[in-house]
Amino acid sequence: MNFLLIEKEDFLPGAAANTVRVTGRRHERLARFLKLHEGDHCKAGMLGGKLGSAVVLAMARDFCDLAVTFDREPPPPAPVVLAMALPRPQTFEKALRCGTEMGIKTFWFFHTFKVEKSYWQSPSLSPERMTAELKLGLEQCGDTILPQVRFAPRFKPFAEEILPGLPHPAYAGHPAAEALLPRTLTAPVTLILGPEGGFTDYEIGFLTEHAVTPVTLGSRILRTEHALPALLGRML
Amino acid sequence: MNFLLIEKEDFLPGAAANTVRVTGRRHERLARFLKLHEGDHCKAGMLGGKLGSAVVLAMARDFCDLAVTFDREPPPPAPVVLAMALPRPQTFEKALRCGTEMGIKTFWFFHTFKVEKSYWQSPSLSPERMTAELKLGLEQCGDTILPQVRFAPRFKPFAEEILPGLPHPAYAGHPAAEALLPRTLTAPVTLILGPEGGFTDYEIGFLTEHAVTPVTLGSRILRTEHALPALLGRML
Repeated sequence: MNFLLIEKEDFLPGAAANTVRVTGRRHERLARFLKLHEGDHCKAGMLGGKLGSAVVLAMARDFCDLAVTFDREPPPPAPVVLAMALPRPQTFEKALRCGTEMGIKTFWFFHTFKVEKSYWQSPSLSPERMTAELKLGLEQCGDTILPQVRFAPRFKPFAEEILPGLPHPAYAGHPAAEALLPRTLTAPVTLILGPEGGFTDYEIGFLTEHAVTPVTLGSRILRTEHALPALLGRML
Repeated sequence: MNFLLIEKEDFLPGAAANTVRVTGRRHERLARFLKLHEGDHCKAGMLGGKLGSAVVLAMARDFCDLAVTFDREPPPPAPVVLAMALPRPQTFEKALRCGTEMGIKTFWFFHTFKVEKSYWQSPSLSPERMTAELKLGLEQCGDTILPQVRFAPRFKPFAEEILPGLPHPAYAGHPAAEALLPRTLTAPVTLILGPEGGFTDYEIGFLTEHAVTPVTLGSRILRTEHALPALLGRML
């Protein structure tokens, strides 16, 4: 964390309007990792708002007071809606973190035949756990805008009702495809990633009928956690 | 592991010349994860050699005998030498795995001012641990050619004596740079990644004097484990 993400609740009542107090993990990082003292600066951003900086007013044993100034726009979002077959919980968390770092603002997670049903019961899908991952992603990349995360627990309604409302062209990674993912985006697209083991023939056929272009992801099969940044890196 | 990596030691003495026996982790994966039985096939490759397939001859409680055929070339290597400031051990292992999956065949890890000295003592750098990671990377992506991993524990000798012998152009990621990393490679390049916290001004100056081009990696600062596949995905 080289970037301090400030929330509304951090503003100190009764102090100057730009004074915040951070505790817990963020205090710990400022005090022990960045080793900040009174008068030191760090980059900061207002959750949902602008970027700026913070100067340490007081560093105490278990809190840090800072004066914050926000005056710049956050980095532009990536023009990509990311739609993934719900992966195993650990990979789900990595995908949230990685996608957020790379500027994704809309995640969809959907069901397919090869998604294990138990994944839908994972505590990783709780709003609290997800928000924590998303904030870590924002802190890493210096952004302030929380992504939206949405779920489609049934494949057909996702393909028939939700996909048509997402940006097109929409590309679905599929080993047997021949088309390549585009390199430089000029307009928003949807990137669809299948489960471990891929889409079934029925699913990829159904997607194709619903205006999705299957694209090859190269001759090497990558782990989901590597494929995601590699594909986004290619397109952005 | 959808791909079985075979080694010389696996061939069964006294059996037909193409018969191998696998035990331990690989047996476990074939038996419990892929749930293979006698007569089933899987993709296979000969470490250091060609790709092909394997058919299960016998699945026992703690070993599996297979008949193997190798008849195709492994996927082409990525035309990139990857040179990284030695990261923390966990990130080092992830970099080996990810780079191997994406086709890197030469890794260099070098020292810089912001590399913690303790990283050089990590057991992750032992040949056994490294080879295990590299093989997992090969298994994931269906490749057979082990990468070379080399170390330069001093920065100046690396920049003065080793870098000139690596492919050029050589690009070093540096937040303050303005040039962009190229998108489609036509010839081999060297990709140089600095430590957490970046190169010092002295180091980036020294690299520039030694025919390295600093390139920006975009306005978002990514974790090393995401930056690496994102950059390779952009170039490959």
